[in-house]
Amino acid sequence: MTGTLYVVGVGPGDPELLTLKAARILREVSCICVPKGREEGSSLALSIAAEAVSLDGKEIIEAHFPMKKTRDAKHGTELDEKWGRTVETVLQRLNAGADVAFITIGDPTIYSTFFYLYDRLLEENPGLGIEIIPGVSSVNASAARAKVSLGLADEKIAVIPATYAEDLKGYLAAFDTLVLMKVHKVFGGVLKVLGEEGLTGNAIYIVKAGMSDEKIFRNIRDVKEGDLNYFSLMIVRK
Amino acid sequence: MTGTLYVVGVGPGDPELLTLKAARILREVSCICVPKGREEGSSLALSIAAEAVSLDGKEIIEAHFPMKKTRDAKHGTELDEKWGRTVETVLQRLNAGADVAFITIGDPTIYSTFFYLYDRLLEENPGLGIEIIPGVSSVNASAARAKVSLGLADEKIAVIPATYAEDLKGYLAAFDTLVLMKVHKVFGGVLKVLGEEGLTGNAIYIVKAGMSDEKIFRNIRDVKEGDLNYFSLMIVRK
Repeated sequence: MTGTLYVVGVGPGDPELLTLKAARILREVSCICVPKGREEGSSLALSIAAEAVSLDGKEIIEAHFPMKKTRDAKHGTELDEKWGRTVETVLQRLNAGADVAFITIGDPTIYSTFFYLYDRLLEENPGLGIEIIPGVSSVNASAARAKVSLGLADEKIAVIPATYAEDLKGYLAAFDTLVLMKVHKVFGGVLKVLGEEGLTGNAIYIVKAGMSDEKIFRNIRDVKEGDLNYFSLMIVRK
Repeated sequence: MTGTLYVVGVGPGDPELLTLKAARILREVSCICVPKGREEGSSLALSIAAEAVSLDGKEIIEAHFPMKKTRDAKHGTELDEKWGRTVETVLQRLNAGADVAFITIGDPTIYSTFFYLYDRLLEENPGLGIEIIPGVSSVNASAARAKVSLGLADEKIAVIPATYAEDLKGYLAAFDTLVLMKVHKVFGGVLKVLGEEGLTGNAIYIVKAGMSDEKIFRNIRDVKEGDLNYFSLMIVRK
């Protein structure tokens, strides 16, 4: 009998933010697949899981596909080869009857690399049993740590990878709350736009929500270059 | 010594989607405060918690404030009176040294009534120890059950209470993914706009994600009037 592939969100960093279901599945599976990329965060998923649950004796498969993959590069040969190997290994274990957990930081449906793999797996075996276990995303965790609501009543929320600051004014006008992902890459530009719109005081910058080295800036002018990293986001609340 | 107020997201419905932290806090506190509103969902939070953790012997405080409260009604007398009593009861327990858990379905930062109470509590006692425990939101859980990504790479996500279908075209043009909350109220209008934009096939309607009576519609034309309810949302993915 073929095993089930569980895609498990391990939450934003605090091991206690795994769900009961994620913890149970990690205890039960014999094999854990973890994305290994060039970007930070790949090995973090495994260390979060290991803090919550003993992984002794489990096989760890490292899926070597780049985290920075974009849709344009979808058919790049190098990526396809790396994926091919990952897909093959995962399918071998499933076909041998083992359940496999593919772990991902935060929630699997929010900017997780798993969905790139998903189509390939189903191409190979359309009948594959796949279950996605939702997790606490860094968006919700950051808002919780900053003690700010993302939305009340009929308010509108936009979650935007802040790769281009120039569109920001339109989003600021149209939404009650903006969550700017990857904001560390364009921090200066965002600061400038917020200043022009008189919204600097409405922004909170959160680094590593819920982790031991968490930082929360309620005055974003205090953010130093060393505070700009992958595990950060900004919430602008009008 | 004053107790701590924990605001605990109990997840979208499946008791196994409580976090380890939420389960621990619910076990440890002597007092649980649960919002009782006119709308559905108020008592669901308590039943989810009770399925995950034994609540025997714990005091249950029912916070009788309306779920439908809007910012405009913020200073309504009736609401203020009801809140006053809730605030008073919660503060009494905290001042007596008890830790209190205010439970909320999904995640506390996503459309939770708690934030209406938050300002009032801090007015009464600015030094109050409040900790917000994030949970799995219905947004992430619905996407996980439908096996659809909310966003990849540089994609933009909008979460919109679908109270007015007429603005929908603009959001459809500007975003890769739309999550339409409370869509049951305007389902016909949304269906019409999606049809006009040729996006009917891009929409998935999810009712009660992860619960025993869950329904997932990949053809939203199949949705019947009886499927339209509070615990539903639509994901439109271009």
